[in-house]
Amino acid sequence: MSEGNIITLLTDFGLQDGYVGMMKGSISQVVSNVNIIDLSHQIPPQNIAAGRFCLMNAYAYFPYGTIHIAVVDPGVGSHRRGVAIQFEGGYLVGPDNGVLSGVLSLSPAIIAVELTNPQYWRTPNPSATFHGRDIFAPVGGYLAKGIPIHKLGHLIDTASLIDLSLPSFQVTEGGIIGYIQYIDIFGNLVTNIPASVVKGKNGLVEVKERKIPQKMTYSEVELGELVALIGSHGWVEIAVNGGSAKAQLEVDLGENILIHNS
Amino acid sequence: MSEGNIITLLTDFGLQDGYVGMMKGSISQVVSNVNIIDLSHQIPPQNIAAGRFCLMNAYAYFPYGTIHIAVVDPGVGSHRRGVAIQFEGGYLVGPDNGVLSGVLSLSPAIIAVELTNPQYWRTPNPSATFHGRDIFAPVGGYLAKGIPIHKLGHLIDTASLIDLSLPSFQVTEGGIIGYIQYIDIFGNLVTNIPASVVKGKNGLVEVKERKIPQKMTYSEVELGELVALIGSHGWVEIAVNGGSAKAQLEVDLGENILIHNS
Amino acid sequence: MSEGNIITLLTDFGLQDGYVGMMKGSISQVVSNVNIIDLSHQIPPQNIAAGRFCLMNAYAYFPYGTIHIAVVDPGVGSHRRGVAIQFEGGYLVGPDNGVLSGVLSLSPAIIAVELTNPQYWRTPNPSATFHGRDIFAPVGGYLAKGIPIHKLGHLIDTASLIDLSLPSFQVTEGGIIGYIQYIDIFGNLVTNIPASVVKGKNGLVEVKERKIPQKMTYSEVELGELVALIGSHGWVEIAVNGGSAKAQLEVDLGENILIHNS
Repeated sequence: MSEGNIITLLTDFGLQDGYVGMMKGSISQVVSNVNIIDLSHQIPPQNIAAGRFCLMNAYAYFPYGTIHIAVVDPGVGSHRRGVAIQFEGGYLVGPDNGVLSGVLSLSPAIIAVELTNPQYWRTPNPSATFHGRDIFAPVGGYLAKGIPIHKLGHLIDTASLIDLSLPSFQVTEGGIIGYIQYIDIFGNLVTNIPASVVKGKNGLVEVKERKIPQKMTYSEVELGELVALIGSHGWVEIAVNGGSAKAQLEVDLGENILIHNS
Repeated sequence: MSEGNIITLLTDFGLQDGYVGMMKGSISQVVSNVNIIDLSHQIPPQNIAAGRFCLMNAYAYFPYGTIHIAVVDPGVGSHRRGVAIQFEGGYLVGPDNGVLSGVLSLSPAIIAVELTNPQYWRTPNPSATFHGRDIFAPVGGYLAKGIPIHKLGHLIDTASLIDLSLPSFQVTEGGIIGYIQYIDIFGNLVTNIPASVVKGKNGLVEVKERKIPQKMTYSEVELGELVALIGSHGWVEIAVNGGSAKAQLEVDLGENILIHNS
Repeated sequence: MSEGNIITLLTDFGLQDGYVGMMKGSISQVVSNVNIIDLSHQIPPQNIAAGRFCLMNAYAYFPYGTIHIAVVDPGVGSHRRGVAIQFEGGYLVGPDNGVLSGVLSLSPAIIAVELTNPQYWRTPNPSATFHGRDIFAPVGGYLAKGIPIHKLGHLIDTASLIDLSLPSFQVTEGGIIGYIQYIDIFGNLVTNIPASVVKGKNGLVEVKERKIPQKMTYSEVELGELVALIGSHGWVEIAVNGGSAKAQLEVDLGENILIHNS
């Protein structure tokens, strides 16, 4: 696979109104032989943290040189910067509001550019409310076409990029304390505790005073039972075999969890 | 980009039942090197006006020669005609029920053909309920393959195509009177007043006796506040910074709006 | 179209969480010139029968050699087998839990392989909960790349594949007795009675003591009226012109229907 012939899209636009189609059209007006792959367009509206989480977990499954465009952009039209960033895995394009910062926490920025060169926009007078279509999509298209990143605007200090850091888990005498950082569509609770920390342990996970056994797979517990495991994202996850852990535990984002020392 | 190697799809089929996948399969049985882009498959069921609006706003973002297939088709199997139309931007394929007429109001039809030649259908005995898969998809595929439009059936008078005209805005002494023609998934209210009419003005917009300031971007008002602006579709739009104007104003399609002379 | 350059995806992952995007990334790490088409990602969670029905109805619209990956996989990580199957139309990849068996009921398996060769996985240590991304997607990619199926693991007896057979319709003195096997997003009721059985008949269809006329198209009855017809899936279907038969008849999956002898 040659560099740069995949573009992924992540937005909070939904699939009803044609906004995503317009972005794809805008890309295709720049470059024809690119493979556009949707990550999600159902990020909860204006939820930068959810967009950040989704992109952070997905980018590593794409080939080197892939261009990831992420548009969760409540500040569109204000003074927030639009940026393109080169990192080891490829390129990131979107608003500088933290939505890109999850990827960068795992694979640091090499070069960052503020998108100030209208030559690579769809129009020198972009819509004040839809930079996804008028700036980010064509910029992604030009990167796919091989335009060097530094032509897209002026270089900025990578340290100046907005970072939406999340508090980390804590190691205490009683065990590891973390919290729920994401809930997926199945009601699985994704914690902020990475697999590496619990490797080899087989302790109990406690949420709201419920003690939940840690297993390898859903099916090691009975239907309807709670189970903790290493989820596909690579974080400790709490699930229900054949059901929704969110519903059964009545929890929401931010809820604390404790992994007991075994 | 060479002519005709993008096909867009717009339907009210939803994404659950596999109907859209079947249409894409049907296209791929005709032509292999085509790029299929979804505009929307969540047009409200049988809502021709909503499909017309979505296609009208999206087509201009695609390269010259793009083939747009639109299937919002409550009359499928009845005597409504299936048509293919050449216009300056490319081709339109779908039922002749007005769903294509928004595009044609902005870029007139050059050639129109009724799809009467079963040689370019998936089967000479198409399903009575799914012309999208059995007629429109393969016809789009053959256009992408370079088959001349006049081979698809017999020429018809472009003036005979069904036009779903909407009433226009009115210019009065007090200001411009229009109405809400579309509400997007964010709850933004899209009026039928184009940007060109209000250019340079900075007047108040009135909806249900609420007076709303006109700005350039959402973020020029406080979170939760109403704002009028030129939306990304190119129409005057009413929005709430960080919220839903539909919910806050409790309005629906057709509601009147007045732009005061300043 | 050359063999194997389309991959279809069917899952119950939804479109929100980026899981489908990860599968596409995983495919694109194996093979770059493949056309990935979504059948549905909104199969009701863990509903193998619904996934089976969707795939069974869709596969025939794709070119010879298409690779269909289906992941409705409640037993992931347990001892259920992962399989790749060659059949006349192309290839099937997924869990051996019946989700692939609808296709095979119409077009029998030629070769079946249990996916035991980690050389064709994304990693020799696949996630215990996401074989879609780590096994089925790359395996589909390698098939698209031309890797012979027997390299993917060891041959298994095609007769050993799990079959989710549905009870068949019955022919009685009073008529044909069947039931509702699927309800689509429009509320159309798809029965298990194929078109071939009622060909040429024009009898009454009875559901919950309501007698419904059989027609060719929705529009042969008034708006809001019930109608029976041959649906686009090729089964007898019950619909409401401009409405939902499910809502109007207050029925669910499994409800009996009777086609009277005329």
